[in-house]
Amino acid sequence: MRAVTRRNKQLICDEVADLTPGPGQILDRTLACGICGSDLHALHHMEHMIETATRASGGFGTGFDPTADTVFGHEFCAEVLDHDPGSTKTVRAGARAVSVPVTLTETGMESLGYSKRLPGGFAERMFLTQAMVLEVPNGLPTDQAALTEPFAVGEHAVAMARLDRDSVCIVIGCGPVGLAVIASLKAHGHGPVIATDYSPRRRAAAEKLGADLVIDPSRESPHARRNAYGVPVQRAALSMGRMMGKSFVRPVVFECVGSPGILQSLIEASPAGAQIVVAGVCMETDKIEPAIAITKEMELTFVFGYTPDEFTHTLRQISGGIIDVSSVVSGKVGLDGVADASVTLGDPEAHVKILVEATR
Amino acid sequence: MRAVTRRNKQLICDEVADLTPGPGQILDRTLACGICGSDLHALHHMEHMIETATRASGGFGTGFDPTADTVFGHEFCAEVLDHDPGSTKTVRAGARAVSVPVTLTETGMESLGYSKRLPGGFAERMFLTQAMVLEVPNGLPTDQAALTEPFAVGEHAVAMARLDRDSVCIVIGCGPVGLAVIASLKAHGHGPVIATDYSPRRRAAAEKLGADLVIDPSRESPHARRNAYGVPVQRAALSMGRMMGKSFVRPVVFECVGSPGILQSLIEASPAGAQIVVAGVCMETDKIEPAIAITKEMELTFVFGYTPDEFTHTLRQISGGIIDVSSVVSGKVGLDGVADASVTLGDPEAHVKILVEATR
Repeated sequence: MRAVTRRNKQLICDEVADLTPGPGQILDRTLACGICGSDLHALHHMEHMIETATRASGGFGTGFDPTADTVFGHEFCAEVLDHDPGSTKTVRAGARAVSVPVTLTETGMESLGYSKRLPGGFAERMFLTQAMVLEVPNGLPTDQAALTEPFAVGEHAVAMARLDRDSVCIVIGCGPVGLAVIASLKAHGHGPVIATDYSPRRRAAAEKLGADLVIDPSRESPHARRNAYGVPVQRAALSMGRMMGKSFVRPVVFECVGSPGILQSLIEASPAGAQIVVAGVCMETDKIEPAIAITKEMELTFVFGYTPDEFTHTLRQISGGIIDVSSVVSGKVGLDGVADASVTLGDPEAHVKILVEATR
Repeated sequence: MRAVTRRNKQLICDEVADLTPGPGQILDRTLACGICGSDLHALHHMEHMIETATRASGGFGTGFDPTADTVFGHEFCAEVLDHDPGSTKTVRAGARAVSVPVTLTETGMESLGYSKRLPGGFAERMFLTQAMVLEVPNGLPTDQAALTEPFAVGEHAVAMARLDRDSVCIVIGCGPVGLAVIASLKAHGHGPVIATDYSPRRRAAAEKLGADLVIDPSRESPHARRNAYGVPVQRAALSMGRMMGKSFVRPVVFECVGSPGILQSLIEASPAGAQIVVAGVCMETDKIEPAIAITKEMELTFVFGYTPDEFTHTLRQISGGIIDVSSVVSGKVGLDGVADASVTLGDPEAHVKILVEATR
């Protein structure tokens, strides 16, 4: 079958071995699969990703081999072709399915899209695990179903935030992670949601996903505008504020950029008592000033991925129209267009999300 | 009156102006006042402390002037001498009192010990505020009452931790902050508490304050010993762990050292899902690797000070014998011994806590 393979730090459209399903596995035809920022990072810096994952002792990197061919793609919607003979067939052949990008094999868990043994969604066929697939409801377009995975990331980030009824939420960066956070915040009835991005296109996307106020950070600070919502600004630490008998709303800031320096800028700019939910993945060593974070009694909550329940809930929110993702996909390519698309995605004005259609 | 004054980065024993109480103020005779690590830092680096506090917009630095004479001392026990004429006199003259180190004046709040207008506890007399003083119960030695302030820091750090019934608590560093955290954890029935310090003297102090296991980090890792308590080690992120249907105890690590590099070492060594409560005050810029913290879904909770309720609760715990601080004071000096003591305190083997007796 055809697939896009990472080889020598390049994305090559090539023939790879066909697949035969094992116990509990489903053979699927890939319909659509989003290109993720992590794919672009892995393309160029896979050795560093593996080294980081190994030091973190996470399972994320165990299937990695930087010298082996890898077929990326973990944001997919696929059509069920065939089950292994012993399967209970909860999702019938011909149905469309999404899944958390994990497949169980006889030798353990494989992270689809970052495995040296199994291909991800940038291939014509892939294996999914019977126990993990979710059937896509009738009427939900394939392009939108493929967005379940990136939007589940937002659902998880919001679940890890400690939001009060009247919390003001600030979302820094309106790339796919920031957009998913905005959508989840609004789906859960939180707000006001203030979003910032230097890119006009991304700011427009944030508005479409329901952000209450969208700001160009080169023109004004989102923290200043927070005050327009009448939220008392706490200047001293929680303990000092309480010493004066005051109570404050705990602001929540979602860091969805992932570049060095952002954390420290948020530690400096955010009000005392803020929780910073760190959803942007900064792969470089970063500098912070702990004394500032201590004086302001801030909390940095680092988040990653999602639970199966959050994934399922996200599919329901998208299919039920609670999260409207119809504006998110800005381009589609076949397998032979993935290499070019990975370059184009570097320009935030050019695209929000590009889907790969392996079998179009 | 006599006082120890910071002048030209030195501690000078000198005469300063006498005090006359204003509205709501109480004139007190200082009985005992601990020397805090923050005093030593302010002695040498007050300009940087002010600059940091100003950027944090905290009230901590507003009364500071690095060129003005400053009388340190915020861990005090004092004897009430006189009230202002209009006072309600809730604490009678002759009684011993402790207070959060804040005094209200006609021009605002002054942080006692870091004020250019009012002296801290390294002076024969000080002003306290009627509304904030707490009478020391009969039978509680003055030396122990003076420890209310540093032990309230531990009470606050523990209050900011999210501890489950069976959380394992790891305390990194057994200086005064770490000891206060250990004492508060045990007073609240948490544990097991594993404490680490390179200093044998500080490890002995940690044992006396109730740590269940005290470790020399040059010989073994506290994280390895955590496993001896049967706590399942989570290697992947929370979300990945949940993906596999597993549940884990959330470990809580208290950072009580405050040196550069400690945060990153804890991010690397702590298990996934850990909350790191940052109580040690690192005044330098520090480096962390966000990608590790993200993959392990860690939380950094920066804490500072305490609330008035926590301060009051700490006095009750000490006076009620729930927290036994009788082993903490390792030396006492008069005002003329403060300068030497500030040098001696740099050696963790020499002392745990030195009290200044201004009027002995």
